[in-house]
Amino acid sequence: MLLHLSTWPEVESYLAGRSSIILPIGSTEQHGPTGLVGTDAITAEAIAAETGARTGTMVGPTIPVGMAHHHMAFPGSMTLKPSTLIALIRDYVVSLAGHGFTTVLFINGHGGNIPTVQAAFYEVYEDLRREKGADAPKVRYALCNWFTMPGVAALQNELFGDREGYHATPSEVAVTQAVYPDHIKSAPLEPLAPVDPDFHDCRDFRARFPDGRMGSDPSLATPEHGRRFIDAAVTEIAARYGAFLDGA
Amino acid sequence: MLLHLSTWPEVESYLAGRSSIILPIGSTEQHGPTGLVGTDAITAEAIAAETGARTGTMVGPTIPVGMAHHHMAFPGSMTLKPSTLIALIRDYVVSLAGHGFTTVLFINGHGGNIPTVQAAFYEVYEDLRREKGADAPKVRYALCNWFTMPGVAALQNELFGDREGYHATPSEVAVTQAVYPDHIKSAPLEPLAPVDPDFHDCRDFRARFPDGRMGSDPSLATPEHGRRFIDAAVTEIAARYGAFLDGA
Amino acid sequence: MLLHLSTWPEVESYLAGRSSIILPIGSTEQHGPTGLVGTDAITAEAIAAETGARTGTMVGPTIPVGMAHHHMAFPGSMTLKPSTLIALIRDYVVSLAGHGFTTVLFINGHGGNIPTVQAAFYEVYEDLRREKGADAPKVRYALCNWFTMPGVAALQNELFGDREGYHATPSEVAVTQAVYPDHIKSAPLEPLAPVDPDFHDCRDFRARFPDGRMGSDPSLATPEHGRRFIDAAVTEIAARYGAFLDGA
Amino acid sequence: MLLHLSTWPEVESYLAGRSSIILPIGSTEQHGPTGLVGTDAITAEAIAAETGARTGTMVGPTIPVGMAHHHMAFPGSMTLKPSTLIALIRDYVVSLAGHGFTTVLFINGHGGNIPTVQAAFYEVYEDLRREKGADAPKVRYALCNWFTMPGVAALQNELFGDREGYHATPSEVAVTQAVYPDHIKSAPLEPLAPVDPDFHDCRDFRARFPDGRMGSDPSLATPEHGRRFIDAAVTEIAARYGAFLDGA
Amino acid sequence: MLLHLSTWPEVESYLAGRSSIILPIGSTEQHGPTGLVGTDAITAEAIAAETGARTGTMVGPTIPVGMAHHHMAFPGSMTLKPSTLIALIRDYVVSLAGHGFTTVLFINGHGGNIPTVQAAFYEVYEDLRREKGADAPKVRYALCNWFTMPGVAALQNELFGDREGYHATPSEVAVTQAVYPDHIKSAPLEPLAPVDPDFHDCRDFRARFPDGRMGSDPSLATPEHGRRFIDAAVTEIAARYGAFLDGA
Amino acid sequence: MLLHLSTWPEVESYLAGRSSIILPIGSTEQHGPTGLVGTDAITAEAIAAETGARTGTMVGPTIPVGMAHHHMAFPGSMTLKPSTLIALIRDYVVSLAGHGFTTVLFINGHGGNIPTVQAAFYEVYEDLRREKGADAPKVRYALCNWFTMPGVAALQNELFGDREGYHATPSEVAVTQAVYPDHIKSAPLEPLAPVDPDFHDCRDFRARFPDGRMGSDPSLATPEHGRRFIDAAVTEIAARYGAFLDGA
Ligand code: NI
Ligand code: NI
Ligand code: NI
Ligand code: NI
Ligand code: NI
Ligand code: NI
Repeated sequence: MLLHLSTWPEVESYLAGRSSIILPIGSTEQHGPTGLVGTDAITAEAIAAETGARTGTMVGPTIPVGMAHHHMAFPGSMTLKPSTLIALIRDYVVSLAGHGFTTVLFINGHGGNIPTVQAAFYEVYEDLRREKGADAPKVRYALCNWFTMPGVAALQNELFGDREGYHATPSEVAVTQAVYPDHIKSAPLEPLAPVDPDFHDCRDFRARFPDGRMGSDPSLATPEHGRRFIDAAVTEIAARYGAFLDGA
Repeated sequence: MLLHLSTWPEVESYLAGRSSIILPIGSTEQHGPTGLVGTDAITAEAIAAETGARTGTMVGPTIPVGMAHHHMAFPGSMTLKPSTLIALIRDYVVSLAGHGFTTVLFINGHGGNIPTVQAAFYEVYEDLRREKGADAPKVRYALCNWFTMPGVAALQNELFGDREGYHATPSEVAVTQAVYPDHIKSAPLEPLAPVDPDFHDCRDFRARFPDGRMGSDPSLATPEHGRRFIDAAVTEIAARYGAFLDGA
Repeated sequence: MLLHLSTWPEVESYLAGRSSIILPIGSTEQHGPTGLVGTDAITAEAIAAETGARTGTMVGPTIPVGMAHHHMAFPGSMTLKPSTLIALIRDYVVSLAGHGFTTVLFINGHGGNIPTVQAAFYEVYEDLRREKGADAPKVRYALCNWFTMPGVAALQNELFGDREGYHATPSEVAVTQAVYPDHIKSAPLEPLAPVDPDFHDCRDFRARFPDGRMGSDPSLATPEHGRRFIDAAVTEIAARYGAFLDGA
Repeated sequence: MLLHLSTWPEVESYLAGRSSIILPIGSTEQHGPTGLVGTDAITAEAIAAETGARTGTMVGPTIPVGMAHHHMAFPGSMTLKPSTLIALIRDYVVSLAGHGFTTVLFINGHGGNIPTVQAAFYEVYEDLRREKGADAPKVRYALCNWFTMPGVAALQNELFGDREGYHATPSEVAVTQAVYPDHIKSAPLEPLAPVDPDFHDCRDFRARFPDGRMGSDPSLATPEHGRRFIDAAVTEIAARYGAFLDGA
Repeated sequence: MLLHLSTWPEVESYLAGRSSIILPIGSTEQHGPTGLVGTDAITAEAIAAETGARTGTMVGPTIPVGMAHHHMAFPGSMTLKPSTLIALIRDYVVSLAGHGFTTVLFINGHGGNIPTVQAAFYEVYEDLRREKGADAPKVRYALCNWFTMPGVAALQNELFGDREGYHATPSEVAVTQAVYPDHIKSAPLEPLAPVDPDFHDCRDFRARFPDGRMGSDPSLATPEHGRRFIDAAVTEIAARYGAFLDGA
Repeated sequence: MLLHLSTWPEVESYLAGRSSIILPIGSTEQHGPTGLVGTDAITAEAIAAETGARTGTMVGPTIPVGMAHHHMAFPGSMTLKPSTLIALIRDYVVSLAGHGFTTVLFINGHGGNIPTVQAAFYEVYEDLRREKGADAPKVRYALCNWFTMPGVAALQNELFGDREGYHATPSEVAVTQAVYPDHIKSAPLEPLAPVDPDFHDCRDFRARFPDGRMGSDPSLATPEHGRRFIDAAVTEIAARYGAFLDGA
């Protein structure tokens, strides 16, 4: 059930029985010579929609731009400052809590979002404590990074081994191919070189990873792989967060 | 050309010849008993995509949640505080300016966004003046509200007369029907009553407009109407903002 | 009744019967070769004081500096960032609400303030909703731009026709002449040229409007005109906002 | 020379020879049973105007609302949060610095403003250091509290002795009487009681000072006293800050 | 009783009988050729600890970095912006108030902190008023600058006369020597020159005070002096703030 | 070399050859019935000091209060909001960068700080990119959580097995015993129960962990253990971050 395709009376009916919602969060950033700039939002949205369908949970709007400073040396990348993303998440969850959506699962497609999203949860918890004390609504927020769950990691390893890499990976590219089979890109790729995943600002990132990939071989991706990743991710999310989404 | 479906080398190529981008901005808010919560984002995104296609302009990610405080008394509505939306727009356009996207046209689907988006432009212009003075990049921002352009208004009047109303209008609902023909909703609608468009906070809004509509009859909407509105809006935007998007 | 010339027991007596207050808001910015830098504050304050007198409404302190980024390329112009002006308005109205001034009419002398003031109202409404929910005080805020009301526009047209223009207009200059007859300035003015009212940052503004005027001929202004504009504006404000100020 | 009564070419001429400006800052707050709510702004503005006249210095717009939390338990009092006042002062002085007003003297009428104004100066100095380093403009800010200068204090003591008190004092009330001789208020005043000037929040303030005065006897004030205080203050400011205002 | 060396049940026991806490606040900044960068934090912490011991008051964590913009032209100096320090103090005291620490005495070692700390108190008082109105907790905050108390000033004068100066003073250096007798530094010192204590930004400060001292002769300091200053300060604080710390 | 025990000329000498600094960051929060409220700051400071000594790196002031919302239901716990901690870290590192400390290693004693510190690094990187673009200083920030490094984890396992737990652990308590052997606390401890490490706000935390421990048995700690943990942590940090601290 997608919030943006629902009417308010339909939302009201949903809230009569449920109090949870899924929010996809992605990023708008370079994904190497062949990956889509919208990869992280596309993957998060697809997996969130399917998770919502299987678990009967409402899915809210996708956050399309996240914290991607380290990619800013590549054209087309966009970023929020962490402080802006915290404010945005606060506004999202406070809006939703007002209607009774007290349980929110963020399904995330971008590693760079993780610290800020977690910080945002505590910003909200602490604001509620200060403003309302014991009367604060008992909200519960969780973050699920689909691309690092054990079942997904096993499939990455099975299919791509050490060619999965860390950014512009075949697994995420495959998911975008499954979603947008008409937008599969190809380009010559430099051979893989050893990767030192430590980097600092965006200039440092581009110096270390000149074409934007981090040790990945996205040429291995296929739409069929993508469908398998979506299924693996959704299956595991449903198992791991099912009780949470049911309010337990 | 959609940013999220492009690779960074494709963006780089685009920027070799152009410096403009279109950003759709919508809202996530009630649209009456039959309108979709995502109406304003859906309409802005559809019109922006078609405008981009006709004018050869890149289209960036849609801002799905805007300033919709006045709808918060209806389940499913979400809002950013104006100060948050200003920060978000600042981050978007500053990210883009760093790559050379110095001209940005916001195509907007929601009246409630207008003041804040305009304020945001000046927040950015003034910040750039302070930080960089005469060296500030010559950025140019414009806001186009598709639903109030003269050609669109003429079509609203022709098709719906005074049943167009102000919110959850048949014109915007029609556009969503054109985009999502499988998600056309129906519900009994109270007869239209005289509308006093002055309201204050969200409690006041719901007291005046109990089912969320403001003097509109969305039952008049059809997907075919929607296609006509998209065409009328895109034609007029291309004419009015074509030179702006070309950098003139 | 002017707040700054009242004692607190007088304010207390007023609040026993009324809950409304008028706040003038202006700007400190260039107004062409002959207009006063304080024009927009002077006009707003004069019209607000007279409106207060006629309607028996308390008038609070004038906000002298508003959002005037676009004038910053001319000496003497001052501006708040939109985010600062939002914070200021929030503090003003929250201070006043604490005493029972739940209805506030901003009488505005500067077009550049409009979006930010409107955004500020929603910032406050939304903050109150979040902090106090159903217990939030029922505050009501309205913005009146004296220079665009129909009756004023008719008089502008009658007296000056298309020489009224958009900035440093004879109507606003006339009002300042009525208030400060000893500070009427004269200077040679370039002939009027066609005006393209679209501009972006302050450098762009000055490039388009080298002496600061936007298609206006302030040499037409007289103090007598100014008195007529004050009267027209106050008459129309009293009619249009009388019930609002009375708490209806 | 008053900024709000000047044209931009007049400001430009002034800046050809001078780089200093005076900014009055007051407060909108209770001043006992007979003092005006606008006392602190009125006194600061009057003394600033006269200082400007004697020293040939431009005087900018008065900040009418300052930091007056401690008076908020009395009707009509308004306050900015310290963080808002810092932002406002930053915007004022940064606006002015852009034109060449690198020296700013704040003439202050309200003790409650002192810490925040001083903090604001360092906020600006530090921001400039961070943003521009060695290229930062050499701005200079000073705060003058007219009511505590030695010459003024001597006159307070001579005229009123220990009936001057700390708030709603005869000296400040006298200045307002000199400026607004038609708005002299009278009311029965409780006898003076011993004053413990330590207070915390606004509830504590009102509990200690039930009618708003702090050990003062404003019934001693006369317009003639007011003129003497204005003269004493201006004379001392001109002597103490003359070189500063001249750019030395 | 030091908070950081207590367990939470010990804090709970303390709060059964007391509601006050002492917070030391210092700075990390140059203190001339022989003074420690941590001088202001060291002195505040030592005096706070001893005050806590004598009065039976809990002592919380030391704020090691304060507002020291004016020292930033010397290596090793650190500063918070005033707005950051306000936020930090707000978080500290709001955290503590939630447990029942409604009375807080800041013992301060650095003049540059004074305005911002005072502003912070009003930021908190005003936030509480807005959020909770009459239900706001009755918190009480006070600031004690140990180095300017009359008894301390008398001892400064007795021991060092006009060689005490204003920064990197023998009195504060002596206190650090008493605390860290193994870290007494020596270096050749330029002869004392007349001091003009008016300065603006950090460049101006260093131009006026090339080695960082302001008219002081820290070579006069001894650990024994330091012990006397600690005793004088603690004795006076206990006398002046004893009732406050006891909740009276 | 400790910054707070250095003079500015000593810092200047250090900076002639090195550009790195270590900043300890802890927390002020409950650590169960026997753990010190200052545990995380004490451990981080001790390990940082020893790391500085072994690697010849300057060590700056300890951040004593971090992000500890989840502990706020226990007396004595303090927290910064994530947004405040981001601002504080920004001010620290920007202050330091101005002197040439372009490499900063945060040695952290508290898991709750991790997301916010990481977010803060990107806040700074992105601010620098926006303000200075290609001219931004090449700063490098890293975060080391001493308690999760492999060598430390191996020792935790060797000494305490599954009685190490997640909070108020014997390893961190042991380190505080090594530092403060005179402040070893004892209290009866409930038997260990199975731990579900998922929690949400501070009320939820206390409901799950009534005495504040998370599956730990701090009664196993000894000062000798503490010395071994300090040595293990410092050895590993020196090996892992040595080149980073040397500027490589
Ligand atoms: Ni990705
Ligand atoms: Ni709509
Ligand atoms: Ni005007
Ligand atoms: Ni006063
Ligand atoms: Ni000091
Ligand atoms: Ni710990």
